[in-house]
Amino acid sequence: MIINPLPRFEYLPADDIQTIHDYSLKLLAELGLEFLHPEAVALLEAAGAEVVDRETGHLRLPSQLVLDNIAKAPAEFTLYARNPANNVVLGGRNIVTAPMYGSPFVHSLDEGRRGAVLQDFKNFVKLGQVTPQIHCAGGTLVEPEDEPQDTRHLDMVYNLMTLSDKTFMGSVTSAANARDSIEMASLAFGGKEAIAARPVIMGLVNVNSPRRYDTRMLEALLEYSKARQPVIVTPFILAGAMSPVALGSTLIQQNAEALAGVALTQLVSPGTPVIYGSFLSNTDMQSGSPAFGTPESAKGLFVSAQLARRYHLPFRSGGGLTSSKLPDAQAAYEATMGFWPTFLAGTNFVLHAAGWLESGLVSSYEKFVLDVEQLRIMESFLTGIPLDEEGIAWDAHVEVPPGGHFLGAEHTMRHFREAFYRPLVSDLTNYERWQQKGALSADQRASRLWKKWLMDYEQPPIDPALDEALRDFVSRRKEEINAAV
Amino acid sequence: MIINPLPRFEYLPADDIQTIHDYSLKLLAELGLEFLHPEAVALLEAAGAEVVDRETGHLRLPSQLVLDNIAKAPAEFTLYARNPANNVVLGGRNIVTAPMYGSPFVHSLDEGRRGAVLQDFKNFVKLGQVTPQIHCAGGTLVEPEDEPQDTRHLDMVYNLMTLSDKTFMGSVTSAANARDSIEMASLAFGGKEAIAARPVIMGLVNVNSPRRYDTRMLEALLEYSKARQPVIVTPFILAGAMSPVALGSTLIQQNAEALAGVALTQLVSPGTPVIYGSFLSNTDMQSGSPAFGTPESAKGLFVSAQLARRYHLPFRSGGGLTSSKLPDAQAAYEATMGFWPTFLAGTNFVLHAAGWLESGLVSSYEKFVLDVEQLRIMESFLTGIPLDEEGIAWDAHVEVPPGGHFLGAEHTMRHFREAFYRPLVSDLTNYERWQQKGALSADQRASRLWKKWLMDYEQPPIDPALDEALRDFVSRRKEEINAAV
Repeated sequence: MIINPLPRFEYLPADDIQTIHDYSLKLLAELGLEFLHPEAVALLEAAGAEVVDRETGHLRLPSQLVLDNIAKAPAEFTLYARNPANNVVLGGRNIVTAPMYGSPFVHSLDEGRRGAVLQDFKNFVKLGQVTPQIHCAGGTLVEPEDEPQDTRHLDMVYNLMTLSDKTFMGSVTSAANARDSIEMASLAFGGKEAIAARPVIMGLVNVNSPRRYDTRMLEALLEYSKARQPVIVTPFILAGAMSPVALGSTLIQQNAEALAGVALTQLVSPGTPVIYGSFLSNTDMQSGSPAFGTPESAKGLFVSAQLARRYHLPFRSGGGLTSSKLPDAQAAYEATMGFWPTFLAGTNFVLHAAGWLESGLVSSYEKFVLDVEQLRIMESFLTGIPLDEEGIAWDAHVEVPPGGHFLGAEHTMRHFREAFYRPLVSDLTNYERWQQKGALSADQRASRLWKKWLMDYEQPPIDPALDEALRDFVSRRKEEINAAV
Repeated sequence: MIINPLPRFEYLPADDIQTIHDYSLKLLAELGLEFLHPEAVALLEAAGAEVVDRETGHLRLPSQLVLDNIAKAPAEFTLYARNPANNVVLGGRNIVTAPMYGSPFVHSLDEGRRGAVLQDFKNFVKLGQVTPQIHCAGGTLVEPEDEPQDTRHLDMVYNLMTLSDKTFMGSVTSAANARDSIEMASLAFGGKEAIAARPVIMGLVNVNSPRRYDTRMLEALLEYSKARQPVIVTPFILAGAMSPVALGSTLIQQNAEALAGVALTQLVSPGTPVIYGSFLSNTDMQSGSPAFGTPESAKGLFVSAQLARRYHLPFRSGGGLTSSKLPDAQAAYEATMGFWPTFLAGTNFVLHAAGWLESGLVSSYEKFVLDVEQLRIMESFLTGIPLDEEGIAWDAHVEVPPGGHFLGAEHTMRHFREAFYRPLVSDLTNYERWQQKGALSADQRASRLWKKWLMDYEQPPIDPALDEALRDFVSRRKEEINAAV
């Protein structure tokens, strides 16, 4: 967990935030949303929603319904980890990161691009575990194509829970898969009542923008909310396709969609933890391709954070997104174009913080390392500038004459070891030394590092009884699922 | 010129800025600086400076001397270009960029790294001329090793003035070279009296940190100030070597050095334009190498800008700095780590905005293109979010039902052409299309672009009489200089 003591950067003035807020409520009240799940419709209708079309679940949501319910959500909450040292607080000035989520492919310099398998999934759990700048092990790190689709959620949750002792995310691909994930979590944390009081597993619920929550996503939202486990409600918007080609209008839509989902979690279970999410970039209107690291996504991130703060909700966004097919200069500058707004906006949960490549289709081993370097730089950027006696270092100025140098000064001797950022993968040596070392590019150096990190990885201790209980659960459920097919 | 309408990001609270200010004045008053030029010493002594050592020009500067004189400098000024459309205002909310300055080497993918020649210099003038995001043609774009050292300033200024019609910078390598530069500028802009009223050529004056202005830099400062041409006073500090290993202490020293130089320009010529400059990064204390794109440089940039604002002085800093030897991921993320603070801090003059590689030893053709992409993204980021009728696009929300898409909406038809950022070098296509196009990395695509830009370049029109006068001046001075050798 990183603490961000800096002031927040306010991209839009308060009047404009008010305008977006007002139009969002108008959109919910006048045009409404579809909820493709009868239980969600029943909950919202009982709370005062007007049914436009029962078959499609199209509802209009009165403003008071929305405002009253989002007010019940906590401004921050603790997510508990198997190792208490890895507990995180979501909300406030905290920043919690997780690796890339959901890619069907992986990329490495050695193997190029190929379908992801369970071994890749395990590798990325391990890389997250050994990286101090990754605070949440994540969820669907990759989609392991070598495991059957119906049961792979069990393998994923098992590996997250046993190869890592950090916080993690569960499956959202169906009600049953969500329940499986929550049950496995409850095995490790004292049962369902215990985790209802102390949440331990998060579910990522995307909106099918524009203005539709589909059956699968509502199943997950309902299961996680009933178990009082945190839901990350995230409109997934590529502006121009899933929203208008205007950023202001897109933010209005995103805010309406997010608030509707947050309100629903509170109707299910008042006070249950929920995160206001944003995944906002734009379509390239020439090619129809998604674009990442764009000025629109940077602006959108700052304003989304302003809105989440207005509602006193923890905020999820950001990450090292890029459209690049390689861990090259484009991948690096697009990622950095995301990291700066992520950190300056006051983002609380950063999914896709390491590894994202090729518009989210690929999880890249080298990009993971390059992103970690950036997370370390941003973390160091937040540490402030001490102006105490050692920070002012008057003695050094007295000691070193004009035209001298400070390398041998007493103050330098006292502080040179911990002074200044020390890079992981950036090469600072001169040209000759760099040539002697093989004239490697940054991605080639990153390639060496992730292999070293996998070698360095040690499995965190786990109670054998818990491991056995988890294995039993996975075996039993696999049998049940395979029998049902 | 880019306008930055956003709020400034204040990294340090006002109390800490006051502390840095107070210690800077204490450093000037109690420990003092060396000025290795009798004319500078005489000016400062007459104004009340206390001579510590006349031989080394070591002076103590009373606070009032400094504060009274920096108050005489203008908060902003216009720098005039040969094409009035390219005039720029330095100060206020404006951002003016110039390419990399001072590299002895160039790098391209085709040729690798080699010594820079005059043709490279011309190429970078041309690349700056065709790039809308470059507002000042720059100065010593590269050091052309194929031209004699004593006369190459004449070739550089001639090419800046004739291949470009943007603003430019002159030589600072000696009093005579500074005078040559100013005289050439005066030929194009109506003579010395005219340019004294309307400045046209800037001089970059670095401090030999710690606390020394050397003879060469003071010669330049005196010549430019006497001609009332803008001086960019820039302490060049790699913390840990040229300043203490503490960032706060480094900012105190930098501020003291900058204020002393600014005050001196006003003693030479009250009201003459001057820019508060910062070039602040840190030494890697393990290797002794300079480090760029570091958290320390980002923090330092924000605080330096806060200080310049306090004194109502235009501010110079930033750029796409990197230690990388290649235009790779490291080069890209280190550059972006500089561009974000540059733009959010309210920097007015951005030297090294495009092309910088290898800790400043190399000007890279591909990096130039990659940096221009970043400048374009940052420029677009500053444009705000309109919330007028077309920005809110209510009609699009009414038109598109839940679960629909906006690609065919009327609002989209009206705006898709100008909507969203369009990249230069970033590839947004999918994997298959990218493969069909040759599977190029970002630096390879950049390699194609700079060659195209050089092909597209057209020399801006120039009065033949002016061109002849400049050529005559260059020939005459070369003869004089060669005769004197």
